[in-house]
Amino acid sequence: MSTRIPVVEKVLSANDSVAAAIRALLDERGIYAINLMASPGAGKTSLIERTVAALKQEYGIGMINGDTSEAAFDAERSQRAGAHSVHVNTGGKCHLEAAMIRDALALLPLGEIRLLIIENVGNLVCPSSWQLGAHASVLIGSIPEGDDKPYKYPKMYSGVDALVINKIDLLPYVEFDMVRFRRGVETLNPGLVSFALSCRTGEGLEAWLGWLRSKLA
Amino acid sequence: MSTRIPVVEKVLSANDSVAAAIRALLDERGIYAINLMASPGAGKTSLIERTVAALKQEYGIGMINGDTSEAAFDAERSQRAGAHSVHVNTGGKCHLEAAMIRDALALLPLGEIRLLIIENVGNLVCPSSWQLGAHASVLIGSIPEGDDKPYKYPKMYSGVDALVINKIDLLPYVEFDMVRFRRGVETLNPGLVSFALSCRTGEGLEAWLGWLRSKLA
Repeated sequence: MSTRIPVVEKVLSANDSVAAAIRALLDERGIYAINLMASPGAGKTSLIERTVAALKQEYGIGMINGDTSEAAFDAERSQRAGAHSVHVNTGGKCHLEAAMIRDALALLPLGEIRLLIIENVGNLVCPSSWQLGAHASVLIGSIPEGDDKPYKYPKMYSGVDALVINKIDLLPYVEFDMVRFRRGVETLNPGLVSFALSCRTGEGLEAWLGWLRSKLA
Repeated sequence: MSTRIPVVEKVLSANDSVAAAIRALLDERGIYAINLMASPGAGKTSLIERTVAALKQEYGIGMINGDTSEAAFDAERSQRAGAHSVHVNTGGKCHLEAAMIRDALALLPLGEIRLLIIENVGNLVCPSSWQLGAHASVLIGSIPEGDDKPYKYPKMYSGVDALVINKIDLLPYVEFDMVRFRRGVETLNPGLVSFALSCRTGEGLEAWLGWLRSKLA
C-alpha cells in the first residue's frame, strides 16, 4: 500500500535560480542593488547621473547598463559620473536576464561597491518578468509619457518597490492629471513609496536620495 | 546521373506567412495599412485621434489597438474619434503578431475601411521583428524622450518607412539636439521621410496628413 506524501516544492525557473545566487553573492559582499526600469527616455541615465554625483563621496557605486545594442552611451555616462560601469548588450532582447547580471558582476570590483544600480532596457513590458537578484525594483515614470501609464502597464506598476515620477518641470506644459495617475498606481500597488522630482532642475531629488541612503545605512 | 537543380526559395516563418496573407487580403479590399510603433507615451493614440478627426470625412478608417492588458483605453479613444476599432490584448506580449491582426480583421467592417491603422504595443524593441502585413511602418519619436534614441534603438529606427517627431511644442523646455537626432536617423535610414509636429498644438500635422493622403489617393 502506497502512501501519498505531500510535497511542497517551489520550482525555480533557471533564471530565478541564477537570481537567487546573485542575491546571495550581493548579501555576502554587503552590496545593495536596485533594478531600475522605465520606458525609453523617461530619465534612467539622468537619474543615475544625479544619484552617483550625490552619493559617490559616501558610497562606492557600481553600474550595469543594459542596452539592446553595442552602443554604450549610458555606461559611458555612468562612468563619467563616477561609477564602476559595465555595459551589457542584450543582443536585441528587450530585458536583462539574471545570467547577464552574473557575468557583468564578474567584471566589477565588488569590494569597492556598496550600491549597485542595474539599468534595465528601456521597456515597460518585458523587464517585469525577469528577476535579477536586486533588493528593490524601481520604476521611473515620466510626466510627458502621460497619466494613463499605470492603467496600460499594470504588471510593471504592480511589481515594483518604489516609483520615481520624473520631469515634473514639464507639468505646466503637458496635460497630466496627477490625481488620475496616483489613483491608478494606488490601485495596483497600495502604499507604494514614490518620489516626484526633476533630474533637470534637481527639484525633489533629496527625498529620493534620502530613501536610498536609508537602504544603505 | 543526377543533376543538381538550383533552388531559390524564401522560407517564410509562420508569422511572415500570415503577414503575407494579410497583405493580400488588404490589397484585395483596397485597404492601405500602417503599423504605428513608438515607446509608451510618445503619442500614438494622440496622433491617431488627430488623424482620424482630419480624414474621417474623406476615408473610412479602421483601428487595431494592441495592448498588453485588457485595458481598452486606446481603442475607446479611437472609437470616439470616429474609427472602427478593435482592441487586441496581447496577453503580456510586448508586440503584435500577424495572427492577432488576422483575427482582429475578422471583426472589422472591411468594406467600409480605406485606411487601417495598427497601433502596436508601446515598445522600441520587440515590434520591429514582427511583420504584420501593413504597407508602411511608421515610428513616432518624441522630443522629451531625448535625442539619443536612434543610437540606442537602431533596429527600430532603421526598419521604418516614415518617422513622426512628436511634441515639438516641448522643444523650449527640454534639452534636445535636433541635429544630433537627425544625424542618427540619417545614418541608420538614409532619406527617411519625417514629420516634426505637435499633436497638442496641431503644428506640423498638415505635412503628415498630406503624406497619408498621397498614399490613399
